[in-house]
Amino acid sequence: MITRDMKITIAGLGLLGGSYAQGLSEAGYQVYGIDRDPDAVAYALEKGWIKAGSTDPEIVRDSDIVISALYPQTFIQWVRDCQHLFASGCILTDVTGVKRNVIREINAVLRPDVEYIAAHPMAGREFKGIRYADSSLFRQANYIIVPTPQNTAKAIDTARNLAEILQFRYIGELSPEDHDRMIGFLSQLTHVIAVALMNVTENPDLVKYTGDSFRDLTRIANINADLWPELFLQNKDYLLKEIDLFVSEMNEFRAMLAEDNTEGMKEKMIISAQRRKAFDK
Amino acid sequence: MITRDMKITIAGLGLLGGSYAQGLSEAGYQVYGIDRDPDAVAYALEKGWIKAGSTDPEIVRDSDIVISALYPQTFIQWVRDCQHLFASGCILTDVTGVKRNVIREINAVLRPDVEYIAAHPMAGREFKGIRYADSSLFRQANYIIVPTPQNTAKAIDTARNLAEILQFRYIGELSPEDHDRMIGFLSQLTHVIAVALMNVTENPDLVKYTGDSFRDLTRIANINADLWPELFLQNKDYLLKEIDLFVSEMNEFRAMLAEDNTEGMKEKMIISAQRRKAFDK
Repeated sequence: MITRDMKITIAGLGLLGGSYAQGLSEAGYQVYGIDRDPDAVAYALEKGWIKAGSTDPEIVRDSDIVISALYPQTFIQWVRDCQHLFASGCILTDVTGVKRNVIREINAVLRPDVEYIAAHPMAGREFKGIRYADSSLFRQANYIIVPTPQNTAKAIDTARNLAEILQFRYIGELSPEDHDRMIGFLSQLTHVIAVALMNVTENPDLVKYTGDSFRDLTRIANINADLWPELFLQNKDYLLKEIDLFVSEMNEFRAMLAEDNTEGMKEKMIISAQRRKAFDK
Repeated sequence: MITRDMKITIAGLGLLGGSYAQGLSEAGYQVYGIDRDPDAVAYALEKGWIKAGSTDPEIVRDSDIVISALYPQTFIQWVRDCQHLFASGCILTDVTGVKRNVIREINAVLRPDVEYIAAHPMAGREFKGIRYADSSLFRQANYIIVPTPQNTAKAIDTARNLAEILQFRYIGELSPEDHDRMIGFLSQLTHVIAVALMNVTENPDLVKYTGDSFRDLTRIANINADLWPELFLQNKDYLLKEIDLFVSEMNEFRAMLAEDNTEGMKEKMIISAQRRKAFDK
């Protein structure tokens, strides 16, 4: 149970870290912040989202809860470099969008008296940086706790409690494998599709004819090019498989079209329409 | 110039035909309707969208303007069967989503004293039928006039005037080839992608984890399975080409991922983000 006398420190005051700081501080919790960019720290202070902040990791000392909102590789490196500052018995959690690799790497280096509970807030925007932080994002979003058999009930409860305070719409639990498989399909494959669709042709005239369908399919094409290649590589095996399944489905449809197979295409569309309706309930 | 003493007859009172009837009648024009379904006619009458309506094509007699809101093959067949009822000198237009084939087939059979001007209102919904008709759809939509060198200025102006009365956001002109190429990419390819994405896996659990990105990419997956195979087949050459270009772009990205080519993926994402930003202006 997270209480209001606990010290919570967030490492990485970007879009997600900033939104966490906002949500937690507005709910009355004591939040501290670390970022290598002094402007991000100053912005969080000015907004009243953190009690104190610094570019110096020393500020993490005595924290009950440490939340990494860093990119995956930066997170792993930061734990290596700074975990000597962690309080014994503290809980470490994160916001990383892929899990198997991060969990393995963190647990391989983490001090035995600190417990890491992996979590993934499935929220984001097409912009990066604390200036776009907005904790109301979470009210429409899912929060997935990704425990391993080694995690204690206390750590899992802490992650759940964090998500409750931040008012996530749905809080679930998945194994690292199930999480990464799901993300490979629902999030990563869709981003690859949007990026491919924007790369396939350069035709500025298209803008004026673009209807809702193309606009919908490419909204996520405005992607953070610094973060996503890293997320893809961390989930390479599953993402390659999802791309292959999708491409072979595209080619199956292509063959039906080439063969004037109206009934085949119709059947695919009926399945598609039925499945999609479940999402609107 | 369309005037309020003209007789305008709409053949096919579905989602689009119904929305045309609503928009034109509310703007004070005299609209008549034909549909093989007496319920659709009754609904249009009850709403006050048509002055008179029938399942009998006889009602098209003496029309100054005839608008087909039928599916492509039905449109062609209807012109064959009913054009003896058309008034000499009347203008025929339509709402068909693909153009080269329809224009060729209509012009091959049409009486020489009637002029067909092809048009494509780029508006739609995930529902079909007159009960979902709503002429306010057009205010966010594009209207493309698709003239051939044989069309007169009068017919082109009539189509443009129709779009103005219906308050389309943008009214443009494209050749049949340019229209079909554009539609093959912006609309048809995106629908094939959405359908493929829904067909690739059957996992009802996905619904609870689905975020905005998957929801956006599959909104159009709730597709009209009676209409779209026909539209695809009418534009088969271009659509096959667009599928191939897109699939090869997917495979190019896949190869970068397989080879840990971070810089290559990043480059694709930068292009993608830049191009997508042009859509938000």
